Amino acid sequence: HLSKLPNIETTIFTVMSGLANKHEAINLSQGFPNFKSDQKLIDLVSKAMNSGYNQYALMPGNMELREAIAKKFDLLYGSSYHPESEITITAGATQAIYDVITAFVRADDEVIIFKPAYDCYEPSIQINGGKPVSIQLKAPNYQVDWEEMKQKISSKTKMIIINTPHNPSGTIFSEADMLKLQEITKNTNIIVLSDEVYEHIVFDGEKHQSACLFPDLKSRSFITASFGKTFHNTGWKTGYCCAPKELMEEFRKIHQFNVFSVNHPVQKGLADYMQDPNTYLGLSEFFQEKRDLFLSLIIDSRFKFKPSQGTYFQVLDYSKITQEYDVDYAKRLTIENGLASIPLSVFNDNQLDNKVLRFCFAKTDDTLKKAGDILNEI
Amino acid sequence: HLSKLPNIETTIFTVMSGLANKHEAINLSQGFPNFKSDQKLIDLVSKAMNSGYNQYALMPGNMELREAIAKKFDLLYGSSYHPESEITITAGATQAIYDVITAFVRADDEVIIFKPAYDCYEPSIQINGGKPVSIQLKAPNYQVDWEEMKQKISSKTKMIIINTPHNPSGTIFSEADMLKLQEITKNTNIIVLSDEVYEHIVFDGEKHQSACLFPDLKSRSFITASFGKTFHNTGWKTGYCCAPKELMEEFRKIHQFNVFSVNHPVQKGLADYMQDPNTYLGLSEFFQEKRDLFLSLIIDSRFKFKPSQGTYFQVLDYSKITQEYDVDYAKRLTIENGLASIPLSVFNDNQLDNKVLRFCFAKTDDTLKKAGDILNEI
Ligand SMILES: CSCCC(=O)C(=O)O
Ligand SMILES: CSCCC(=O)C(=O)O
Repeated sequence: HLSKLPNIETTIFTVMSGLANKHEAINLSQGFPNFKSDQKLIDLVSKAMNSGYNQYALMPGNMELREAIAKKFDLLYGSSYHPESEITITAGATQAIYDVITAFVRADDEVIIFKPAYDCYEPSIQINGGKPVSIQLKAPNYQVDWEEMKQKISSKTKMIIINTPHNPSGTIFSEADMLKLQEITKNTNIIVLSDEVYEHIVFDGEKHQSACLFPDLKSRSFITASFGKTFHNTGWKTGYCCAPKELMEEFRKIHQFNVFSVNHPVQKGLADYMQDPNTYLGLSEFFQEKRDLFLSLIIDSRFKFKPSQGTYFQVLDYSKITQEYDVDYAKRLTIENGLASIPLSVFNDNQLDNKVLRFCFAKTDDTLKKAGDILNEI
Repeated sequence: HLSKLPNIETTIFTVMSGLANKHEAINLSQGFPNFKSDQKLIDLVSKAMNSGYNQYALMPGNMELREAIAKKFDLLYGSSYHPESEITITAGATQAIYDVITAFVRADDEVIIFKPAYDCYEPSIQINGGKPVSIQLKAPNYQVDWEEMKQKISSKTKMIIINTPHNPSGTIFSEADMLKLQEITKNTNIIVLSDEVYEHIVFDGEKHQSACLFPDLKSRSFITASFGKTFHNTGWKTGYCCAPKELMEEFRKIHQFNVFSVNHPVQKGLADYMQDPNTYLGLSEFFQEKRDLFLSLIIDSRFKFKPSQGTYFQVLDYSKITQEYDVDYAKRLTIENGLASIPLSVFNDNQLDNKVLRFCFAKTDDTLKKAGDILNEI
């Protein structure tokens, strides 16, 4: 049987977490917290199971949770979505992204993506017969050259995927970036998929530039988001997707036959938990402290960096230490030094290697201190 | 934007459950239990959350759960799968089915399905550009004419989807059926997708004919299954998929970028629960009592039936009562008589109407008695 994805191998996340486990290394590779989420949230999910939320949720999701999300958009951005027709709960953000791409991308359609790119965009495009068109963002600033993007738009461009705050680089789009994107796509039929899973993690007083803040852009955009990243339970695999009604209708046709609906007790627990907006409002401060702790420990090391602007990742340039290929160096750092990270070349075209590794700082202070000590001694 | 599924509307399950809620009718339409699952299972999931199973599971699933599934196959069928390479946990059986179809079906490939068919097969084929080729099973026996199927196989046939025990008809495939299927597909490259979500619900001492029991068939088959149907928690949306290694590799390439992984605490809870095989061994007896109770109440009614052989559904023929179109009658029965069911025509080609409704008997005895009384008085 011909493979739809002939070149796919084990993801870098599985490889590096596996290597970390094998060598008992500190694991700052795969993006997940090593601390517990709020006990209150766990108890609310248990309560939901014990009070009978164990059969199918509605296909687009538990209504109270959709209402809580609508309220959140209103509160944070003054720009919301209708719970009934414009919000759908998904089995994680990855699944939301897959549904968006599948709903619209057909054979030979082009989809513009920015490299380094999170690893699910490209295969999801290819599974649907589409063609990823990449734009390489240049280290260390990872800024988009919007003129370059304009050049790459063709009559076949069906979709543009953006991701702010950006994984893996830890950069964010400015208001000017979003306005540029809005202007370039104005009067086109191009769909914008705005992957905003780190929406609540933006540092140094900057503001997250959600696609919903730009009315014309919003009218052709999907926003995908993650409860796992926001509430420290990546293993619950729950996220959501928002879009104007006409776009959401097509999304739901795919969603309905892909997964139909999503874990009901988790949805009910999240709905109850989100009644208090403080559950998500303090996240930037929480993670900024972690970023600052981590950076304070390596400020005098041989690793070069610009502080992360958002996400829970920090990229470090190791070019003063060695000229090894980043995948090799990441493995060696795990095996010899006991610290696992993610090499950025795997997210670039042609394995472009800028000698940069990504470290996840969603970890206890104790873990971050141990990691910092290791990096400092290299 | 062109729709990939232009003709899809709200599913019959949502329509009928919605109507049941609106009219406070007894809901025997959508297939889910109205009783609680084992408290022990709920407690095990809570325990998993409280003991730290809240971050990403491995992409193919929690290893203890995969091992428990392998043990189950061994115990029940003496034919198992390797936990490492041949079993993957999914976000429900629907999602497993979607992944199987997506991994192999391309533009213009043909997929043979038997009507009446569960409603997710056909759209999943179409999303991938494939062409469903249907074979109509004839009421009231719903037997496959294997000669007819042989005729429908062409050079474009990529896959055959079977479903035993069969939803919605409640019939099962015999050993002879499976041997026929094995023989017809022998020495072909055709993949068999065996939807076995009701594997543990087979009545009157009959044996479930799993595709894994027939070695040659097994070598080209996927089996999809559901924890929700087996453990009375359809809202947890957890299932699994088994296949020989080479087939499973292609499945996982899709799965990885569709959902990546599945709710971890639920997986851990299920793994612990399944350590005791009695948790799934007694299911046929449990549901046979429910079927028998339901049928005993309507034995003298004007509805005609053959007792369900498997699943938790019973189809009833209402042709002695009215000649109304089954969708209209199902709605009228909900609104006027307070009892919701599923009309079978929606699962047939061209809405073929045999005057048959499907009733879910995964309900408390009290609910079944009330439903039986209603049907008896019509
Ligand atoms: C699904 S494993 C990858 C987790 C993640 O979001 C990341 O590390 O970037
Ligand atoms: C996903 S809703 C349908 C549930 C079901 O399996 C059925 O009623 O047949």
